[in-house]
Amino acid sequence: MPGSSSLPRALVTGAAGFIGSHVVRALQAQGRVEVVALDDLSGGFRRNLPADIDFVEASITDHGELARLFDRYRFRYVFHLAAYAAEGLSHFIRRFNYTNNVLGSINLINESVRHEIECFVFTSSIATYGAVEPPMREDQRPCPEDPYGVAKLAIELDLAAARHMFGLPYVIFRPHNVYGEFQNLGDPYRNVIGIFMNQIMQGRPMSIFGDGTQRRAFSYVGDIAPVLAECPWVPGARNEVFNIGADADCSVNELAHDVAVAMGRPDHPIEHLRARNEVSQAYSDHTKARRIFGDRPQTPLPEGLARMAEWAREAGVQRSKPFEGVEVTRNFPPSWRALLDSSPRSSKHSAGEAAA
Amino acid sequence: MPGSSSLPRALVTGAAGFIGSHVVRALQAQGRVEVVALDDLSGGFRRNLPADIDFVEASITDHGELARLFDRYRFRYVFHLAAYAAEGLSHFIRRFNYTNNVLGSINLINESVRHEIECFVFTSSIATYGAVEPPMREDQRPCPEDPYGVAKLAIELDLAAARHMFGLPYVIFRPHNVYGEFQNLGDPYRNVIGIFMNQIMQGRPMSIFGDGTQRRAFSYVGDIAPVLAECPWVPGARNEVFNIGADADCSVNELAHDVAVAMGRPDHPIEHLRARNEVSQAYSDHTKARRIFGDRPQTPLPEGLARMAEWAREAGVQRSKPFEGVEVTRNFPPSWRALLDSSPRSSKHSAGEAAA
Ligand SMILES: NC(=O)c1ccc[n+]([C@@H]2O[C@H](COP(=O)([O-])OP(=O)(O)OC[C@H]3O[C@@H](n4cnc5c(N)ncnc54)[C@H](O)[C@@H]3O)[C@@H](O)[C@H]2O)c1
Ligand SMILES: NC(=O)c1ccc[n+]([C@@H]2O[C@H](COP(=O)([O-])OP(=O)(O)OC[C@H]3O[C@@H](n4cnc5c(N)ncnc54)[C@H](O)[C@@H]3O)[C@@H](O)[C@H]2O)c1
Repeated sequence: MPGSSSLPRALVTGAAGFIGSHVVRALQAQGRVEVVALDDLSGGFRRNLPADIDFVEASITDHGELARLFDRYRFRYVFHLAAYAAEGLSHFIRRFNYTNNVLGSINLINESVRHEIECFVFTSSIATYGAVEPPMREDQRPCPEDPYGVAKLAIELDLAAARHMFGLPYVIFRPHNVYGEFQNLGDPYRNVIGIFMNQIMQGRPMSIFGDGTQRRAFSYVGDIAPVLAECPWVPGARNEVFNIGADADCSVNELAHDVAVAMGRPDHPIEHLRARNEVSQAYSDHTKARRIFGDRPQTPLPEGLARMAEWAREAGVQRSKPFEGVEVTRNFPPSWRALLDSSPRSSKHSAGEAAA
Repeated sequence: MPGSSSLPRALVTGAAGFIGSHVVRALQAQGRVEVVALDDLSGGFRRNLPADIDFVEASITDHGELARLFDRYRFRYVFHLAAYAAEGLSHFIRRFNYTNNVLGSINLINESVRHEIECFVFTSSIATYGAVEPPMREDQRPCPEDPYGVAKLAIELDLAAARHMFGLPYVIFRPHNVYGEFQNLGDPYRNVIGIFMNQIMQGRPMSIFGDGTQRRAFSYVGDIAPVLAECPWVPGARNEVFNIGADADCSVNELAHDVAVAMGRPDHPIEHLRARNEVSQAYSDHTKARRIFGDRPQTPLPEGLARMAEWAREAGVQRSKPFEGVEVTRNFPPSWRALLDSSPRSSKHSAGEAAA
């Protein structure tokens, strides 16, 4: 039942996930809203959240359930982080990607319009840019190159349309390469830092797609989550799109070295796999976010990695669970194919079917 | 059962619809492929197609059925026209719009990738541009302003991603304001020419949203369908996006006059309704299409209207059937609300549910 606090209620979707669980804590620390946490636990874990949180296990693809929740809780704010975020895999799970990431988001937008909420906060992605010349700026023309990025851009554009037609206020963030505590270490398709830590703990070499010269700016979650949690109350943020994340970039080879150091295994070996289809450089310009949210200190990579490594050693090895709803296997990266082949349920489209 | 012809097979989706039925005939006239016509008859009519066509009644949202059809027919070409195309209504039927127009298209792209087809022809829309400065050119940054346009752009981008990852060849068209024989006269939400003709035949005034000064370039279907049908075999067309349609634009007021003349009722009255949220000018530059497909004659508006009027008088009045799956009624145009209120099933989300 809705709590008895007189604070306005905020729905956080994807709350049991990595960034979502930090946003929940940041909102609680700010004390402006009463949080209702929603997640279908497809990629997140109940244990990532405080024990006493108001938690709803449900999928955003279930529009009937969302309608009931909005009627019951009368949310004033929505922080929408739920997504299946495996960018590279999205080519092979198109239907699931658009079902979960577009239709799920659309169900939330419909309810937010109906209930005239105060602000819709959406985590889009740097993937909306595609292969534009870095540093990416918010006013560049987006050219997403994979279904994950296309889905994120579609929701950005749909939010702008909803604002135009219904006055639904929003704030959109395009984070990139976020890392830190509560990140899913067991996901074989993404989160390079988590994969490295998991591999080190299992005594396996750190695997790098291609030659490792591709550059990324890795962003500590503790620098990001408070901004997401505050944005509805920050003047000038509404109805804007913001890049958010670290300024300093590094190559994946340099990253592997830093992760090994943080895990206390500076000489841990590296294995190079066949390059996959990914942009070679992706880092973004944060001038706009700095102008609106202030010039906040950024946690240096070694420090953030040290904190994450401490948590990872406590959390321990996490098992790789392949995605079970692969729709197309043409051009599937060999290392992922090996995962599929070793899965007893590899021929079942279970996740895709469940969400469709 | 698959026919016995040795020609490669082409799937035409939305084949029982307005443009689709013309594309089917153009393909038959060209004789390069054997046509399989697919439609769920949600907006089209079996009678629009030749009686002896290989017709499949199915929805593109049914991915299992599509997989069976591709396995059985081994299509080499896909002409994808199926869509729910009521642009103005799409704000109020978001979930249905993205289910039908995005997920349905994605199911076709998945099968086309799996079966390595020769060419995927997609009818996008001028709605992908939104309120950019006309004349619209293919290299302008698209800024769709409604869920219908967002869905079309998402599929354009997804096709580019599928081409990049899997080598799926495509040709994309952005038609605008097509009119002609077999257009659904009974649709209350769109096809202004069909609405005018239907109103004239019912002795009701022609209804115009706003002052009627908004300008559009109306394109005769007989000028468009042959280009769509030929494009896979036209050098330089593959993996490109083309505006297609008439160059000459006119105001909706001028159009009403021309329609009245074509219907033999030059003095038929006009009724102005409250303006709705729509772009005031939309006409596009066809230089690119002319370069690749040649400089073809365009049917003058009075001539196209005369042909359509002759067909319309034969077809007779068509009944307005309101869309029964409206999801959001906030800011709903009053004239559409009246339709809803007069429908006995107005509270049922039947169409939306059936497709979800
Ligand atoms: N981590 C990054 O570097 C990064 C970068 C850019 C954007 N993002 C975006 O930030 C958001 C959070 O990402 P994350 O890294 O925390 O990923 P995550 O997988 O840890 O969190 C996503 C959460 O959403 C939940 N979820 C997925 N589908 C759902 C559904 N249908 N219904 C309810 N819950 C569902 C999962 O169970 C998971 O807990 C995502 O939208 C992601 O696309 C993340
Ligand atoms: N008419 C125009 O001016 C115009 C302009 C730009 C783009 N287009 C696009 O051209 C295409 C054809 O439009 P039209 O004017 O002929 O519309 P139409 O409504 O006459 O034809 C669309 C057809 O698709 C069918 N359909 C809809 N959903 C389906 C589904 N899920 N499965 C199978 N069939 C389904 C309908 O029954 C209908 O026969 C559409 O994609 C439309 O978006 C049309």
